[in-house]
Parts: sequence; C-alpha cells; structure tokens
Amino acid sequence: MGSRENGVTSSTSRGSGNGGAKVDKEVDFANYFCTYAFLYHQKEMLSDRVRMDAYFNSVFKNKHHFVGKTVLDVGTGSGILAIWSAQAGARKVYAVEATKMADHARELVKANNLQDVVEVIEGSIEDITLPEKVDVIISEWMGYFLLRESMFDSVIIARDRWLKPTGVMYPSHARMWLAPIRSGLSDHKMSDYEGCMDDWHGFVKETKTYYGVDMSVLTKPFSEEQKKYYLKNSLWNNLHPNQVVGTPAVLKEIDCLTVTVEDILKVEACVSSTITKEDTRLCGFGGWFDVHFNGRKENPAECGVELTTAPSIDDGTHWGQQVFLLHPPVRVNDQDEVRVNFSMTRSAENHRLMNVDLAYEIKLSSGVTLPPVANKFFIE
Amino acid sequence: MGSRENGVTSSTSRGSGNGGAKVDKEVDFANYFCTYAFLYHQKEMLSDRVRMDAYFNSVFKNKHHFVGKTVLDVGTGSGILAIWSAQAGARKVYAVEATKMADHARELVKANNLQDVVEVIEGSIEDITLPEKVDVIISEWMGYFLLRESMFDSVIIARDRWLKPTGVMYPSHARMWLAPIRSGLSDHKMSDYEGCMDDWHGFVKETKTYYGVDMSVLTKPFSEEQKKYYLKNSLWNNLHPNQVVGTPAVLKEIDCLTVTVEDILKVEACVSSTITKEDTRLCGFGGWFDVHFNGRKENPAECGVELTTAPSIDDGTHWGQQVFLLHPPVRVNDQDEVRVNFSMTRSAENHRLMNVDLAYEIKLSSGVTLPPVANKFFIE
Repeated sequence: MGSRENGVTSSTSRGSGNGGAKVDKEVDFANYFCTYAFLYHQKEMLSDRVRMDAYFNSVFKNKHHFVGKTVLDVGTGSGILAIWSAQAGARKVYAVEATKMADHARELVKANNLQDVVEVIEGSIEDITLPEKVDVIISEWMGYFLLRESMFDSVIIARDRWLKPTGVMYPSHARMWLAPIRSGLSDHKMSDYEGCMDDWHGFVKETKTYYGVDMSVLTKPFSEEQKKYYLKNSLWNNLHPNQVVGTPAVLKEIDCLTVTVEDILKVEACVSSTITKEDTRLCGFGGWFDVHFNGRKENPAECGVELTTAPSIDDGTHWGQQVFLLHPPVRVNDQDEVRVNFSMTRSAENHRLMNVDLAYEIKLSSGVTLPPVANKFFIE
Repeated sequence: MGSRENGVTSSTSRGSGNGGAKVDKEVDFANYFCTYAFLYHQKEMLSDRVRMDAYFNSVFKNKHHFVGKTVLDVGTGSGILAIWSAQAGARKVYAVEATKMADHARELVKANNLQDVVEVIEGSIEDITLPEKVDVIISEWMGYFLLRESMFDSVIIARDRWLKPTGVMYPSHARMWLAPIRSGLSDHKMSDYEGCMDDWHGFVKETKTYYGVDMSVLTKPFSEEQKKYYLKNSLWNNLHPNQVVGTPAVLKEIDCLTVTVEDILKVEACVSSTITKEDTRLCGFGGWFDVHFNGRKENPAECGVELTTAPSIDDGTHWGQQVFLLHPPVRVNDQDEVRVNFSMTRSAENHRLMNVDLAYEIKLSSGVTLPPVANKFFIE
C-alpha cells in the first residue's frame, strides 16, 4: 500500500530488519505502522479507483476461488478486501490488522452484515494464531516501486505459515519495471539545490560577520545532506506517458506463491532500453510495478486481472511512479541504447527504506558507447 | 528549540514519559531526536536572528558569568552556545548532544580553535557523566509555546545533577503568555473541514454504488479524526500584532533555578483579558513565550536580556505563536472581558506533545456574561 503520506518515517531508527535481523517493534510502529491507523489515509487508498477496480474484479470475477473457502487478508486496514471476499461467498475470512484501524474494520464488517463470516484480528501477522490454514491469502501490500515498506515480507511469512499446500495468492505475480524518462524535475531540483547552497554561503558569511563563528567547515556535510535531499532521493511523481522516452524493461519478476524473503532482499538486474524519441533528454529513470491475479497453475483464475501502475493519462494510481533523476540530463536520440545496471537493497537503518545503485551506459545509434555513469539513490 | 519541521512525530508511540514514567528511548529517538541530526534543521534555528541575538548578547554582555568558569550546554546541536561561552572566556565547556550532530559540533569547535576549552559529548544528558559540576548551564530548550517537546525536563535534570549550588541558569526565567486574537484561519479551517466532509460523503456514496460496501458507519469516527486535524490541533502561525485583540495574560512563570519537572507537568491558570479593539471577532487565542537572562539574585546579570516570541512585525522568530481557533468566532467589543480557564497536560501517548483544555467566558462591557464555552485542543 503505497502512500503519499509516506507510510514510513525516514528517521534514523536503530532497529533494522533484513530478512530476519531484529526489528525493534516499538520503533517500527512509530516509524511505519502508525500512519495506517488514520481513516484519512485509508480513504486515500480506498479512493484509488484503479486499485479498487483491480481487486474488486479479481475477487468477483473469480468466485470459484472464494465460494465456500477460507481466506486470510493480511493487513486488512479498513477491511475492504475481507468484506469483498465474504460477499463473493467465502465461508470464513480472517482479517488481520496491526493498528487500531482493526476496530474500524470490525465496525465496517458488522455494518455490512458480515460478522458471521469475517473475523477481524488485531495484531501483527507474525504474532497471531489462526484456528486453521486457508485457501486464499489476499493482501494489498505493494509500496512505491513495489517493495518500499517491505510489507511483502509479512505476506510471505503468512503464506508459509497459513496457506494450504493447494492455496492461492491474491495477487499471484508481481513485476518491477524501469524506463528512461524525460522530466523537468531534474532541472528544478538542481535549481533548488543550487539555491539552497547559495543561501548557505550567505548564512556562513553572516554568521561569521555577526556572531564571530566560522561555519565553513560544515559546508561539505551540509552540501552532502542537501544533495541527497534534492538530487538523490527518489521522487513520487505521476508521469505522463509521453515522458517515457524508451522501452520499459522488467527488473524483477515475482511468483507470490514461491518467492522467499531472501529473494527480495536484493533486486539486481542488468537491463537494456531503446530510446524511442527523436532528439530528447534522458533526465532519469521511472520505476513502477504491476501485479497480476492469475491464480495458480493447478487452480487458475477464470478471469485474470492486471493492476498496473505504469504511466497513464486516465488510469494513474496513488502509487504514481518513483523517479530517479540524473544530473545533468543527457541528450539522446531515437535508437540509442541505454544499458542499466540496477541494484536495490534495504537501508541498514530502516529495512522498509531502500538504497539504489544505478549505473547506465549509453550506446549511440552511431555505434559509439559513452562512458558509464554510476549513481546512488535513496528511496525514503 | 521550536521547529517548523515538527521536531516531534505525532505518531501513537507506546512509550510515554510523565515526570518519571518510562519512555522507550528508541521510540523517542524515532519520534523526536532524529530531526535534530539534520544540518538543515540546525541552520533554520541558527538563521533565527532574534534567537541568535538574544543568546549572543546574553553571553557577551555578561562575561563575568563566563570568564574562567565552567559551562554545560544542554543539547548543543551545532555547538553554537558552547562556542560563544568559550569565546566569552570560559575555562571549560561541556557540550552535550544526543544525536550525530555532535560530530559536526566537534568539527565546528575545532575549526574555531576552541577544542582545548569545549568538549563535545555525544549522549543523553540523563546518561552522561561529567568530571565536575559547572558554574553555568546554558541551553536553548524552548519548544513551540515554550513547553512543546518537553526538552526542559532534561535541563532540569542536568541542573539538579551538574549545577554548583551557586550556579547560574541561561536563560534564568521563562513565561507563557495567552491573548485573544482575530484570524482568518478560523474560517479557512472550518471551510477545509467542511470540504473534507463533503468529499467523504461523496466517497461513501460511490463506494456503495460501485463497490457494494456501506462505509457510513465510519462517518462519525472520520469526522472526529478530521475535526481534530482541522479544528482542534493548534497551529503554528506568525501573528501580526494587529491580530491581538485583547490584553495578553501570563499563564505561567518559571524560575529556571528552582522549578521542578513536577511543576511543569501541568500548566493551569485562570486569566482575564480585556478586549482592546472596537467591534471585532474573537477567533481564538494565541500562545507564546518569553525567556530572560537575568542571572540569579546572588549573582545577577550585568545586562539582563529578554528573548520574546510575542507577535511582532520585524522581530518574529521561528517559533511563531501557537494558535487555538474557535469555531465559530465570537463578536466582541472594546472593554469586553474574556475570562479563560486554561489547562495544559502531556499527551499519554507521547510526553512531548500536549493536550489543552481551554474554557472561556465573555463578560460584555454592558455587564452581561455569556455562557462559558469549553474547548479541547491538541499541540502536536
């Protein structure tokens, strides 16, 4: 569940989790879970038509997966997926929610006359116990660029513990995409950064003049802090399809039935993209994801559904895309090739945030290859 | 140190501190301390000329308190107060800072050639040990409306442990003020709240129509959540002096040498304010503070200095004022009297945030007393 209101506070938490390493639960709550306890935040996600349509259709167009079956909704929030599962004919639905939002989910279930089917359980999925294994695990766990927030870890743990050997995952598959983009943001952010440094230099001068303290030794760390903030932190953006200037490439494919937490600790790929616009600027890369509701080989969906967060005019989502900006942008042309070495790992300070190494190399259509450029980014 | 970047994350932290009750340190760090580790934030405070001038003058116009003396700077941040203390002639300065900003403070001390006098110590003042007691404790601990962030607790603890019996506090005194104000914000926030509820009703209708789920049971909790956000959370504002429509009143007076943590757990006062404008609207109340650098009776300042955050055209500070809005505003007139019962206590979820009960009663200049109105506010 990507969230404009952050969903994760990027403070320097001393707890960290990396595929099993200890996460301080109280800190995790203060940094992460707490925003989901607000109805305003739930409403934001419930108002995302594309998201709602995809899950709604995935359930109601595949009732055979639900009728008379048992379902687990991981991170039920307001309870919407649990309610739909029950309305689609489930025998029993366990709706697990870590925050006090569980109280509202319980109210909502009752108000929709489904309390005999849906049981709301407040707690972390890692800690709670169910009386039985389930036929379906349904969850909306996706963060910005799919894995921000690392909520999928919890779904995998739930699957390994509570899904029957014949059970089905909703969604069943996920993919991460990357494409070269053009964007005015690159110039804007550089301009903001430069303005910020101009202001800093004025500040250093004044502090020396009026207060007798020489702050120039802090110029370097200040500029690094601001560079990170303005130039290296990935941005939420709602890209227009015209901003995609080359063929999108798949960075990662996930089978939600078999993937392990180990598999998603690191996303590493070497991909290639062909520029598809004449005489344009490569200002950065846009990252997004899609998920599919296909069921499983032994028990497929009758009607497969796709939820994509690719740049779109009419069908944008609250996830937007994550934008990694280059400084400076590079002039490119139709048929130039951009080769990207992409590597994303979890931040040591906060396992729900990411570090990205993105190196690109441009091979011009003339055959000349430009020197590779390496960049570090942060998904906060 | 009031901060526009919040300084405290108002998430529902399970740790709490109330004059000794257990505070989860990791959570406190994630919620509170972490923002002070950013140079950008330090710069904001260092760029506050009124703040800087007051502390600068308090030190350099009272060198007799510093020359050859020992000083403790509680929450040194960038190190500025410690550096000034050393420049004013201190023999030794202990500069304590809980965050990694301590590294930058150390650099700054060195770059200004004061490493023989200023010792930067990274840690919580409650945990560290000094080799001796000190003559002066200097600290910039004030949050919005003085006590938000509850940093003063740490200064009191430092005083009780490390200040010599003859020692001096910088600042020496503090006061909280309240005044009736007019403000367009009252209308704006009501308008925002109403728009938000209109949007909600549309959302409930659509969710029923398109997705078959009746969300109306959540209307009441949603409206309470939004009422709190739009109408009951106090606001940061930079009031124009013309917006103050009645005589300001003192809510609390603090002698920094003798006050205890117990004394500041609750701020309770019954005050009166006379309206000083013709035919105006009482839209709410503005709260601010001042501190004084007067030394102590046995060892007074040679030049007393005041730092005030009262509404000002030219001398505003980054603290602004805290604004408590009334809905609806009340028409008042010159010489009407506003009696206020004010009570501020710490939030159970987060001891650095506050709950306010503010009841007011208007006695018109005609002699008629209007019925009292009680309000709850939250300083987050």
